[in-house]
Amino acid sequence: MESFSFLKIPTHNGLTMIIDKGQSPEYVEHSMRVFGKYISCAKFGWGTSAVQSEEIIMEKIEIYKKYGVKPYPGGTLFEYAFKEDKFEEFLTYCKKLGFECVEISDGSMDIDFSSKCECIRKAKEFGFIVLSEIGKKSIEEDAKIPISEKIKNLKLELESGSDFVILEGREGGKSIGLYDEKGNLKQDDLNEIVNSDIDFKKLIFEAPLKNQQIEFIMRFGNSVNLGNIAFDEVISLETLRRGLRGDTFGKIPK
Amino acid sequence: MESFSFLKIPTHNGLTMIIDKGQSPEYVEHSMRVFGKYISCAKFGWGTSAVQSEEIIMEKIEIYKKYGVKPYPGGTLFEYAFKEDKFEEFLTYCKKLGFECVEISDGSMDIDFSSKCECIRKAKEFGFIVLSEIGKKSIEEDAKIPISEKIKNLKLELESGSDFVILEGREGGKSIGLYDEKGNLKQDDLNEIVNSDIDFKKLIFEAPLKNQQIEFIMRFGNSVNLGNIAFDEVISLETLRRGLRGDTFGKIPK
Amino acid sequence: MESFSFLKIPTHNGLTMIIDKGQSPEYVEHSMRVFGKYISCAKFGWGTSAVQSEEIIMEKIEIYKKYGVKPYPGGTLFEYAFKEDKFEEFLTYCKKLGFECVEISDGSMDIDFSSKCECIRKAKEFGFIVLSEIGKKSIEEDAKIPISEKIKNLKLELESGSDFVILEGREGGKSIGLYDEKGNLKQDDLNEIVNSDIDFKKLIFEAPLKNQQIEFIMRFGNSVNLGNIAFDEVISLETLRRGLRGDTFGKIPK
Repeated sequence: MESFSFLKIPTHNGLTMIIDKGQSPEYVEHSMRVFGKYISCAKFGWGTSAVQSEEIIMEKIEIYKKYGVKPYPGGTLFEYAFKEDKFEEFLTYCKKLGFECVEISDGSMDIDFSSKCECIRKAKEFGFIVLSEIGKKSIEEDAKIPISEKIKNLKLELESGSDFVILEGREGGKSIGLYDEKGNLKQDDLNEIVNSDIDFKKLIFEAPLKNQQIEFIMRFGNSVNLGNIAFDEVISLETLRRGLRGDTFGKIPK
Repeated sequence: MESFSFLKIPTHNGLTMIIDKGQSPEYVEHSMRVFGKYISCAKFGWGTSAVQSEEIIMEKIEIYKKYGVKPYPGGTLFEYAFKEDKFEEFLTYCKKLGFECVEISDGSMDIDFSSKCECIRKAKEFGFIVLSEIGKKSIEEDAKIPISEKIKNLKLELESGSDFVILEGREGGKSIGLYDEKGNLKQDDLNEIVNSDIDFKKLIFEAPLKNQQIEFIMRFGNSVNLGNIAFDEVISLETLRRGLRGDTFGKIPK
Repeated sequence: MESFSFLKIPTHNGLTMIIDKGQSPEYVEHSMRVFGKYISCAKFGWGTSAVQSEEIIMEKIEIYKKYGVKPYPGGTLFEYAFKEDKFEEFLTYCKKLGFECVEISDGSMDIDFSSKCECIRKAKEFGFIVLSEIGKKSIEEDAKIPISEKIKNLKLELESGSDFVILEGREGGKSIGLYDEKGNLKQDDLNEIVNSDIDFKKLIFEAPLKNQQIEFIMRFGNSVNLGNIAFDEVISLETLRRGLRGDTFGKIPK
């Protein structure tokens, strides 16, 4: 039972995606026991899966699944496999490890857009839940892509079968995607997304910084989907979503 | 036995308050075994208690108490209960969970000052150790309160029964309370506190950043009471208090 | 077995030194099981060893050694002992605890350079692996020492028996040593080191920030020795070294 349940605190339907940077199985287990119920999926960030042993990865996948959390390898690892012309081997191996989701991205290399969509379709054929990501890892490269093009691609990726599309924010949340160099939201870009007819339930905003989480919640409601949340910030985000921290206190309708 | 005891390192009587943002019981247990002896109290930050299960909260309270650390729920949760007109229910429930302290604050909402003092008295009647907090969570609201008023209220709260008064610093330590936008101490405000006749043993300065901890130690001695210390910084703070880190090396009298 | 081994990811010979700020034995054990294989040595930062019990320190030393990691007490603790005229007692006690390395530094106090070299020789006589450190903890003091003098001393310390020389970066990596106030590398200073005839295999650059790690890897190759790595960043650094993160993706030769 939740503690302080007599306070009748508001709830939400938002998806929270955490970033696992190589946490130990024990740390994952202990953490999930406290806040696994608030997490929908766990990204093994970028290529971190490939520098952990098969045994560790499989152990962590099992733990996450036990708590109802869907783990998946970061998009950079897909890109590495794609570059090496080993995409199908990648999918087969992810399945063997126990992953039920994969991420398809083109943040670290250029992938022909039709190839990216083809990869999304292929991953769906393999039976995966697919998250695809829009945005470049490089500040300079990312800045070259107008938001209108990102929105157009985002729609095409959903049509190709992506279950969710992730908007890039990296681990740091600055000078990338929707964020300026201080980590503040670029309002014009955000407005273009708002004014498009995209189903917000299909979007995950990477929002590692507290001010970003607050702004998304205040603008789109506490059920907005947020990603790249650090382990240490999951409980904090949950309190923000539910009006239990000063920043959103009294501002979340019951 | 302490290691390196032949070095006869200076000690201190300062109170250290940590902030628990939803750490797992195992993490708390493992950490307390290393540095629980340096901690006086552990705040379950803002409303985080209410998004952890009753079982987890009670388990953590037991662990803290086993190591001589007094846990308490953050003031924001008191305010939530107060707003819902459930203050007595809140106190009764805190007692049932095993908390021996509570925090009375008005950081997230306006509470008539006489009501705040009345809450302090009521919590004392219930048998709690009471920490009350001075300051607003909002940068704008906090800036509106002159330091002279904070000092006046602080004294009245002590008179109302507060065992300690906490000076707000939030988790971030910037643009709030005694700190400017870079996290540096506002000297004028600090001087007003120094020049008042307040018993420093009754004050806890929230000082999450290292430069703040150093400045308090250098100015008021290594027994100054400091709060909102992250788990990862407890050992570091202890070395700062004892002249075992470059910043205070050779500056702490034996 | 490494996961995703079919991707044939490049490896390296770089030394990675982590900073232990008072982590619990359990946390160390769980972490080493995941990434101990990537770590050469673990520094018990500055004087943190002296505020942990003998039992905890010995337990942690055993864990590190079990995973092939060499733990050692930070240089500040050596300086504390030196100042108290207890250097030999310090060495004897370090040996008793199980440390196989020590660090000789003069970051927090002035030590006559010939005395520093004498301490290096003495520690070697005691059978320790010796890491000596160049640089001051104080921003002002550190800035007074020209890079040419640092390079000269560095060579003399190696001649005195140091197995490795560490270039100071502190935990924060800003306004110190090779870093400017934003944590960017000072190119001129770095060039002077490059243009000297120092064996890079003998140098460890303290590089706590990601941009620093990237710059060292891109400039000196992925086998550059890097130190003051936080626990949470070990896996990330390993991916940077191996082209598995956007920042070095496609830039690490096989």
